[in-house]
Amino acid sequence: MSADKSAPAKLKARQPRGFVDRGPADVAATERMLAVIRGSFSLYGFDPVETPFVEYTDALGKFLPDQDRPNEGVFSFRDDDEQWLSLRYDLTAPLARHVAENFDALPKPYRGYQVGYVFRNEKPGPGRFRQFMQFDADIVGSSSVAADAEICMLAADTMEKLGIKRGDYVVKVNNRKVLDGVMDAAGIDRDARLTVLRAVDKADKFPLEEVGKLLRGGRKDESGDFTKGAGLSEAQAETILRYLAVGQRLAELGKSTASDSARSAELSAEAVTELRTLVEGAENGVAGIEELEQIRELVTAAGYLGRIIIDPSVVRGLEYYTGPVYEVELTFPVTNEDGQVVRFGSVAGGGRYDGLVGRFRPEPVPAAGFSIGVSRLYSALKAVKSPIVDQKNELPLVVVTAMDNKSPEFMPAYQAFVSQLRQAKDGQGRALCRADLYLGSSGFNAQMKYADRRGATCAIIQGSSEREAGTVVIKDLVLGAELAAAGRDVKDSAEHKERQAQAQFSVPVGELVAGVRRVIERHARA
Amino acid sequence: MSADKSAPAKLKARQPRGFVDRGPADVAATERMLAVIRGSFSLYGFDPVETPFVEYTDALGKFLPDQDRPNEGVFSFRDDDEQWLSLRYDLTAPLARHVAENFDALPKPYRGYQVGYVFRNEKPGPGRFRQFMQFDADIVGSSSVAADAEICMLAADTMEKLGIKRGDYVVKVNNRKVLDGVMDAAGIDRDARLTVLRAVDKADKFPLEEVGKLLRGGRKDESGDFTKGAGLSEAQAETILRYLAVGQRLAELGKSTASDSARSAELSAEAVTELRTLVEGAENGVAGIEELEQIRELVTAAGYLGRIIIDPSVVRGLEYYTGPVYEVELTFPVTNEDGQVVRFGSVAGGGRYDGLVGRFRPEPVPAAGFSIGVSRLYSALKAVKSPIVDQKNELPLVVVTAMDNKSPEFMPAYQAFVSQLRQAKDGQGRALCRADLYLGSSGFNAQMKYADRRGATCAIIQGSSEREAGTVVIKDLVLGAELAAAGRDVKDSAEHKERQAQAQFSVPVGELVAGVRRVIERHARA
Repeated sequence: MSADKSAPAKLKARQPRGFVDRGPADVAATERMLAVIRGSFSLYGFDPVETPFVEYTDALGKFLPDQDRPNEGVFSFRDDDEQWLSLRYDLTAPLARHVAENFDALPKPYRGYQVGYVFRNEKPGPGRFRQFMQFDADIVGSSSVAADAEICMLAADTMEKLGIKRGDYVVKVNNRKVLDGVMDAAGIDRDARLTVLRAVDKADKFPLEEVGKLLRGGRKDESGDFTKGAGLSEAQAETILRYLAVGQRLAELGKSTASDSARSAELSAEAVTELRTLVEGAENGVAGIEELEQIRELVTAAGYLGRIIIDPSVVRGLEYYTGPVYEVELTFPVTNEDGQVVRFGSVAGGGRYDGLVGRFRPEPVPAAGFSIGVSRLYSALKAVKSPIVDQKNELPLVVVTAMDNKSPEFMPAYQAFVSQLRQAKDGQGRALCRADLYLGSSGFNAQMKYADRRGATCAIIQGSSEREAGTVVIKDLVLGAELAAAGRDVKDSAEHKERQAQAQFSVPVGELVAGVRRVIERHARA
Repeated sequence: MSADKSAPAKLKARQPRGFVDRGPADVAATERMLAVIRGSFSLYGFDPVETPFVEYTDALGKFLPDQDRPNEGVFSFRDDDEQWLSLRYDLTAPLARHVAENFDALPKPYRGYQVGYVFRNEKPGPGRFRQFMQFDADIVGSSSVAADAEICMLAADTMEKLGIKRGDYVVKVNNRKVLDGVMDAAGIDRDARLTVLRAVDKADKFPLEEVGKLLRGGRKDESGDFTKGAGLSEAQAETILRYLAVGQRLAELGKSTASDSARSAELSAEAVTELRTLVEGAENGVAGIEELEQIRELVTAAGYLGRIIIDPSVVRGLEYYTGPVYEVELTFPVTNEDGQVVRFGSVAGGGRYDGLVGRFRPEPVPAAGFSIGVSRLYSALKAVKSPIVDQKNELPLVVVTAMDNKSPEFMPAYQAFVSQLRQAKDGQGRALCRADLYLGSSGFNAQMKYADRRGATCAIIQGSSEREAGTVVIKDLVLGAELAAAGRDVKDSAEHKERQAQAQFSVPVGELVAGVRRVIERHARA
């Protein structure tokens, strides 16, 4: 199309459901946030890696939670050789493919981090998008629980570097093997297990009594909706509820960093003993409890007591986890969409996925990793007013107006002004400001409105009289707004008049940069 | 899958054609490069924006070069409501959709920049991928050529900030209207015009004589392949060739920043006069020449003489351009895949696309922008050894070995070492180093190989005797490699022995960080 000559019906500018644009403030703040996460992961010796957005569908596998139909949840399409391709739905499956493909060339254990968008072909809803960003760290080739411990500590450190205070987050750790062991020992059918896991997952939202209904026949919620239960026998349901009760005690004990640590260690040992009776005879479960104890020991030795806790109610949705699982929960209160005060909730999670890389390799390849939900964490940083997401990080903006924009012969002079401002430095040799030349065709008032709307610190003006005098006018928009808001009684004062003179003043053309610097420093000091 | 219990045939770890992974060095260097471009675009008052990877197919439009079939060149799939979705093939079409959708809320003229991957469903080849990164800047809502001039200056400034020296790049400007005017004036058929444009596009690769063949009947290349020509009459072909000859003279004059600028201005005026005769009677063409003259005036006033030049052979492949078009060419020589020395070539381009936003709006919306091909530019930065892509920007890495990794009880102590190192600061209060704990199950020799392979500056070792003595051994791997490479005659010298003592030494556990700092400073100084 070289132009709209035939004037067809206009297209509607719109986006597919579940996909959104992001504006300047969000993009810039997210960028700063990603830089902090990169720095944090890098200190732990993780190297960056990047895999493409498109993979062979079979290489990704089908590990999404609650997806029964093939390709459900994934955007897929056929290549011209008829092979199925998919947009990645997480970063773990592509990482597994990458490590398997480059196995001999990579140092092992391999530590990698990756950030990027992933896609889910699901029904979008409030706060639920079909494209969202994840930031992952993975350790491949280590079966040691020290790898799981490292990942939990990395998660804790990263929260603090982002401005989430100690006490406002907790890293919860569980082990799939323990849950499997409890279900083995209780003789729970394979078919019922997914429903049991979902019920266990509700233990941090519902009282245990309500979880019990989900384990037995089912539960009706306040709205009258009925959720079918797992259909466990009374003894089986009791076992799971005992497991959850011990778990809650353990989690509470984990949070205490108090001085009576001898007493809390004793209580904790008691709880672990009880846990052991619940997995009696299930080898896997016994091993799982030992792994949890080792993780606790490692993180305690490294000084993460109270920040990383054992919590047997953590389940994690993804199917591919095989051992320890972790979840980062923000514990400070926020008001949700229904006006209720709730904990902020989970912003990151992960676990051990020993089977995933091995799908491609002759040998088994143990691996563990975690994934930050970047958009959710970004909301959290805004909620706690983290300095990372503060808009004040941006350079001040200067708008050069083009009073005589009807006459192209004056544009080179305006152009020269922005050019100088873009090269100007502050006292530390850094860029002084961003500079924008008004390029529209509107008159002066519209240009001043433009400068306001862009949040400019000052505007530069040169009309015919200034041109003849070889000067420019510098208008301090921040001070100007303050003065305009001042009361009538103040406006006649001598001080007000002096400040007005500061808010708009004229300098010789050669002193443009010096004048702008004065205005910018004025507000930096404030 | 909870494990590979049934042991099915192993999957092959592979990627779809035209999609690639990127390793640590490339990811880190590209990140630094993007930060420089962001800073540069930001100084010009451009705000960041982000649009999703998936758009309605009709919103993107069909503007790819050389694509006759619908959806050719684009990855498309149906949403569950049967509407067609596509992966974006560039960032311009989504930006046009974004601005049209948020027209009233955005300050106008709108200045935005966006970086991200785009996708082409094409046959991949060497250096030609189906996923690649672009970095765009756009000004929407300005019909002034000052907007085109700003974009060209931004392109020039950005090259220099990235470490491409003045003289190693040139920004070429042409105007689609001039070419259209010449074809109008020469009475060239609509049907032949695309072939004519492609021939004109070859003028910087072939002598004009060869271009002439492409304008007339056709051309046989060295390999004997025949390209059908545009079938112009002798007079029409002569007109286009005269146009190209004038163009080449203008481009040469543009590059001169010499002192005889009076003489070159005169020659240039002569060439422009000749250009005017070629578009005689074609209103569009006359307007196009005037716009080019205004752009030249603006960039000259701002001091970009010789860096931004008028070159009438520039065409640009995309269909949506309606006025000035620009191309950033790197002029330094490189050796291509066939061993020939050639100019590096184009790394960015753009132009005015006045029809694109207007597709969605009742009013016409003028716009202009340009796009950097990030991967190609990254290759260029490596070719000129720009400091931006230098690997030395990374923090040094320390590997803590785990000599007794068979006994889990020693892991907490090793863990505490990495923990301390990750919190350690250098003299300026910045992070001292990255620290990695070996988490595999291999023995000591394999662990030292691992440290080498990861490029570690030093390794930390604690076996049973050190543990008993309360010490750790610090091994300087950089110095160690130097000493190992030294000749036999040197190895007996007292100096060599002293250096050996520096390359591996023991410190009390409490002085671990101080010891590592000594090693890191040793190599920072070198």
